[in-house]
Amino acid sequence: MAQQQLDPTDPSTAGPVSCDALAGYLRAQATEFLRSLRQHRETGGASSGSDGSVDAARALRRSARRISGSLHTFRPLLDADWSEGMRPELAWLSGTLAREHAYSARLERLLGALNRLSGPGTPAGFPAQAGREASTEPKGNLTIGAAKAGALLDRQLTLARTRAHSAALQALGSSRFHAVADSVAVLASEVPLTPTAAMADLRPSAAAAEGRLIDAVGTLPLLTAGHPYNAEALVHGLSADTAPQPQDAPWHQVRLLLRLHRYAREVLHGEECPVDPRLLGAGQALNQHRDAAEAASAAASAARTPRIAPATAYALGVLHADQRHEVEAARFAFQQCWQKEAVRTP
Amino acid sequence: MAQQQLDPTDPSTAGPVSCDALAGYLRAQATEFLRSLRQHRETGGASSGSDGSVDAARALRRSARRISGSLHTFRPLLDADWSEGMRPELAWLSGTLAREHAYSARLERLLGALNRLSGPGTPAGFPAQAGREASTEPKGNLTIGAAKAGALLDRQLTLARTRAHSAALQALGSSRFHAVADSVAVLASEVPLTPTAAMADLRPSAAAAEGRLIDAVGTLPLLTAGHPYNAEALVHGLSADTAPQPQDAPWHQVRLLLRLHRYAREVLHGEECPVDPRLLGAGQALNQHRDAAEAASAAASAARTPRIAPATAYALGVLHADQRHEVEAARFAFQQCWQKEAVRTP
Repeated sequence: MAQQQLDPTDPSTAGPVSCDALAGYLRAQATEFLRSLRQHRETGGASSGSDGSVDAARALRRSARRISGSLHTFRPLLDADWSEGMRPELAWLSGTLAREHAYSARLERLLGALNRLSGPGTPAGFPAQAGREASTEPKGNLTIGAAKAGALLDRQLTLARTRAHSAALQALGSSRFHAVADSVAVLASEVPLTPTAAMADLRPSAAAAEGRLIDAVGTLPLLTAGHPYNAEALVHGLSADTAPQPQDAPWHQVRLLLRLHRYAREVLHGEECPVDPRLLGAGQALNQHRDAAEAASAAASAARTPRIAPATAYALGVLHADQRHEVEAARFAFQQCWQKEAVRTP
Repeated sequence: MAQQQLDPTDPSTAGPVSCDALAGYLRAQATEFLRSLRQHRETGGASSGSDGSVDAARALRRSARRISGSLHTFRPLLDADWSEGMRPELAWLSGTLAREHAYSARLERLLGALNRLSGPGTPAGFPAQAGREASTEPKGNLTIGAAKAGALLDRQLTLARTRAHSAALQALGSSRFHAVADSVAVLASEVPLTPTAAMADLRPSAAAAEGRLIDAVGTLPLLTAGHPYNAEALVHGLSADTAPQPQDAPWHQVRLLLRLHRYAREVLHGEECPVDPRLLGAGQALNQHRDAAEAASAAASAARTPRIAPATAYALGVLHADQRHEVEAARFAFQQCWQKEAVRTP
């Protein structure tokens, strides 16, 4: 059976979509997974840290996420034992590979924010100069604080990144990883569909994924988020609870569900189908939300380092609040995107 | 000559407005000044701190600002030596009387913000409990930090307020003050107009005051301010400069010019004429801007207290950023009000 011709601009497909689209999509993602794995090995693997190796790791994560997401959304059409066994393994793999990149992106975001907060007069990359600047007048202690805060974050997040790098290296050499790679290799040639899958339509499963997204968005405080400067994101900025802020969780959940919805659309309409710019915008806002929330949390956590100078702690406090402010800005941006989306869909 | 009948709803008066309107306004403000001064003495004066005394001091400042502003706007119609001599004295008086109230309002704003930032779980008025909370687990050091920051701000701003109170008390007993009161008493019976004032029209001077306001608003970065979450207000949040942020100055200037414009409208249309709600909104936004900027500055200044704990400094950093965030919010609110104003005026 040939893959259905779908109108790439129309999200609601006229006719049923057969499971061939799913099988084709999973095979393509599995092939891409194996290709990037090969590329990763050829560019020196995780130990090299070269651009090629970083790109390959990113491509590996990208296809792992798409396979895992499709297994979840189209669960009823796939061999249950096989797909239930594979999903946690793919999640483990992409999680392990993502961590190193996440730490270096978080450090970059925090040092960028410290530079911005220090005003145009401060030289870029000042954390390296912390020692030198410490000799200036006491009046300039806030700048010294920013420099020391930068140096502290640099130390802590570089250490975390190095550990994540080793963990990724170890993971890629493990028998657990080889088992995942073998499963993906099988998937590249044969997708284990259920006996009744051939008669099934993919659209109800895709619609259910969209429904879960819409339900989750419905629980978000969008009215508040749409009101600029609502000061909600910083409400627990000084609370004693060191755990991630509970108010962020529903937004993180929507981010995951939006991703699943996007992948389901890729299955139905083909991966080349241009992404709806509003979905793209909403997704980017939620990525910003996640990154800012984690950066804010890293600043708060650095402030709990024993024996830091008050000026360092002050700078970390400003930085924490700045990133929580970015969390709030991301919620506003999401609300603006989603509003447009809702107007467009009748 | 009877005071012109003005349409209270129409800001552009059809015919010329004679200087009788100015003389009447100044006499009324001078009478109000003397009345509140009497009330202030009867309610126990500045030393009592009672509600009546606070209200009287506020009314005194209110009329002093209006007299001073009108002397400035309608300068060409008034005896130059007399009005040039009186303005700095009125500014000194209202400045001296305003300070005590400003410190207590600033403390209230900062403690309110600390409570909000500590989340719903923290009891209100926690600064008093700083000692008790210090005995909790180290994990809760951010809450301890908030409590200690509150106690520190309480100490510093209460001391500043007490000093301002003594200064106000001293000012009200000084011969300098009695000279101002005597000048105002003269004004209540006879306004020293220039010989040609009787033939003059008040409108050009009022229009010039409005022109100065519009010019000053034209220099504000309203395009940026109208874009929510532009993160401009915190740009110098960690700069070494301890002076008030230079980016705030044009906004403070517009605040003063908006006030002069409002008073000029009161002269032309009568004080009972309802204030244009958009001017009122813009003025409130600029008051918020000033209050938040000064609160942010107080938090930064408290963070420079020697030998404070890192947790205290961290909380003050969060607080500083929060108040700079409010500065940005106030600019956004002003932009929204002003936009409406511009649309209305053809």
